[in-house]
Amino acid sequence: MRINYKRELEDAARTMILVHKPNTLIRLILRMIVRKVRVEHAGILLYEKSRDCFIVTITRGQVGSKIPAGLVRLDKNSPIIRFFNDSNNIALLERGVLLLSKINTLLSDREFFAGKEDLEKLIIAIKFQMKSFDTVVCVPAYYRDNLLGILMLGEKVNKKTFKKEELDFFNALANDVAMALRNAFLFEDLQLEIERNKKLFLETTMALSAAIDAKDHYTRGHTTRVTEYSLAICKHIVAEDSKKFDAKFLDNLHVASLLHDVGKIGVPEAILNKKGELTDEERKKINEHVVIGAMILEPIKALDEVILGVKYHHERYDGNGYPEGLKGEAIPFIASIISVADSYDAMTTDRPYRSAFTKEQAMVEIERCCGTQFHPHLVRIMAALYKRGEL
Amino acid sequence: MRINYKRELEDAARTMILVHKPNTLIRLILRMIVRKVRVEHAGILLYEKSRDCFIVTITRGQVGSKIPAGLVRLDKNSPIIRFFNDSNNIALLERGVLLLSKINTLLSDREFFAGKEDLEKLIIAIKFQMKSFDTVVCVPAYYRDNLLGILMLGEKVNKKTFKKEELDFFNALANDVAMALRNAFLFEDLQLEIERNKKLFLETTMALSAAIDAKDHYTRGHTTRVTEYSLAICKHIVAEDSKKFDAKFLDNLHVASLLHDVGKIGVPEAILNKKGELTDEERKKINEHVVIGAMILEPIKALDEVILGVKYHHERYDGNGYPEGLKGEAIPFIASIISVADSYDAMTTDRPYRSAFTKEQAMVEIERCCGTQFHPHLVRIMAALYKRGEL
Repeated sequence: MRINYKRELEDAARTMILVHKPNTLIRLILRMIVRKVRVEHAGILLYEKSRDCFIVTITRGQVGSKIPAGLVRLDKNSPIIRFFNDSNNIALLERGVLLLSKINTLLSDREFFAGKEDLEKLIIAIKFQMKSFDTVVCVPAYYRDNLLGILMLGEKVNKKTFKKEELDFFNALANDVAMALRNAFLFEDLQLEIERNKKLFLETTMALSAAIDAKDHYTRGHTTRVTEYSLAICKHIVAEDSKKFDAKFLDNLHVASLLHDVGKIGVPEAILNKKGELTDEERKKINEHVVIGAMILEPIKALDEVILGVKYHHERYDGNGYPEGLKGEAIPFIASIISVADSYDAMTTDRPYRSAFTKEQAMVEIERCCGTQFHPHLVRIMAALYKRGEL
Repeated sequence: MRINYKRELEDAARTMILVHKPNTLIRLILRMIVRKVRVEHAGILLYEKSRDCFIVTITRGQVGSKIPAGLVRLDKNSPIIRFFNDSNNIALLERGVLLLSKINTLLSDREFFAGKEDLEKLIIAIKFQMKSFDTVVCVPAYYRDNLLGILMLGEKVNKKTFKKEELDFFNALANDVAMALRNAFLFEDLQLEIERNKKLFLETTMALSAAIDAKDHYTRGHTTRVTEYSLAICKHIVAEDSKKFDAKFLDNLHVASLLHDVGKIGVPEAILNKKGELTDEERKKINEHVVIGAMILEPIKALDEVILGVKYHHERYDGNGYPEGLKGEAIPFIASIISVADSYDAMTTDRPYRSAFTKEQAMVEIERCCGTQFHPHLVRIMAALYKRGEL
């Protein structure tokens, strides 16, 4: 069956633009070449910025004959790279492509290299390199004037020579690949930046909330543990029903758990660290931390849902909590999750006035307060997590 | 001159993939169409997700004849949109394109719409719509099965009918445009997310540092002002020599300024808010805030340079500062900037033991301490900012 290369090329270009993972893109292209042109193997030597060299990352083709991925690493002084980085060598290409057969023809021509001994040496070195890779065609891919990569192909399965239209196809394809790769790399950069920023935000929030934690001598590590429990609860709910929450909710719960006690920064140290029993007045001051926390975060629009978690994590399911005495489902669910996580951690750590409960004792207490202090659904989840040893 | 549409298309597709601003991309395409095919005007009706309708955002062509951008807004029930959203209507297209001339031919054929009154009504409505836009060709652009936009063209400048190869060109182009647009929109989404995350990080850091500020009754608003001064200094330096700092330094300075006093959270309130003179012991405790601040942030790798600013912003140029007595250029420059900004704000606000200096008095003091407390380069910048009324 004859192949319409123009058509293949257009289809490929359109598909490529939407593949934003460089490795996936390369795999796609190599697979297409191996299948459509029926070559024994194909690989791409790709420029890697961080190491300033060209590496074969991905190869396709018959086992045994293909170039071993990861093993081939060529620096800028490597013959094949030097060749393609010098625009004077364009004249030696056949339709934009370097052919082993062409190299052999040139080398057998005694006249050709007269007075060009350096070039002859380079070409001999390239011949050696191509043979060692079992490669008969090299197609350079440039973006503007920069060599991004080199497509390296083995022989055709039927051992015939490449047709002109096939060489044109490789050449045009290499250009499209260069564009698509550049696009994919830019995409990857943006995605990495998003991940880095997210990590930075969480780490900074964690560091600052840990510092605030440290003000209250009895709660060292409290924030980290509450965050762990909250996320475990949420993930368990999502595992039961993946449509219950989106990724945004999990992110918000994460941040809200980290910041749930941020308002303690507004409570006098003398009260936070008091050894004896608290007066009503002092208790009231401590309870204010939920409202202070919400006030601190209030200017930040993107934290709307987080603020609900901070403000209402001391509400009770029966309506006897603070600051507003919200009841049942009127309590934002993000706050209900933090509430049970917060209480579990308070129970299982030492306090000035009592020793820590065991996990078992804490779970008995949480089940006793099902529907009064805690949301029944969340008590069920806590029991399940406890049973599986995840608390 | 005859135009090689295939060639134009390939070039366009390659350029398009690297244009990541949707509006720039559309402008590029419309300009190309208007110039190459010589139509009187061209516009794109583009689907806008947030408003769930199609809007003409950008148009190109002769003044007067072009479709007014921003004025045309079509919802899903609009005839032209309904037409292209129904795959049964493909049969009415000419090489994938809707032509006003074809509509006229159909409407003059009494047989054609027999028993298809709804379709006839729709076609009449489309004719009216196209005429009101002065449009003779509509080219739909789909991504998968979703209509992303419609290219709308006026007559050719030479008033001739469109050739088959021109229609094919529009049709192929619309497909490429759909892909490129989809790519550009994804890019835009990622970039917006990066901006949102960055804003969230800065806002949260600012809120938390303001809360820590509030612990020290005499420094309300201090952090915000120091940040303002630091950034003004840095921008002034960059204006003089754009290669002096990169964007990353400005970001780090921003965060370091916000967090420079974060260590105060570790200093007892009783000392921070003491009215009388401080004992040596108390002074030492307060001075510890720079080291405590660095310790709080230490686990965060991405904040390496920020930590330098926090830790060393009380060093002096002559080596008599704390915590390490670093001298001159050995003090990280980020810390030297915060140092002078911090001191200027301290001088120009009321303290328990003295009233605020005027700006003029503060500048005299800063210049007096040039080369002893402050970096001479920064004193020069402060003087320049003061003269221009930017302090």
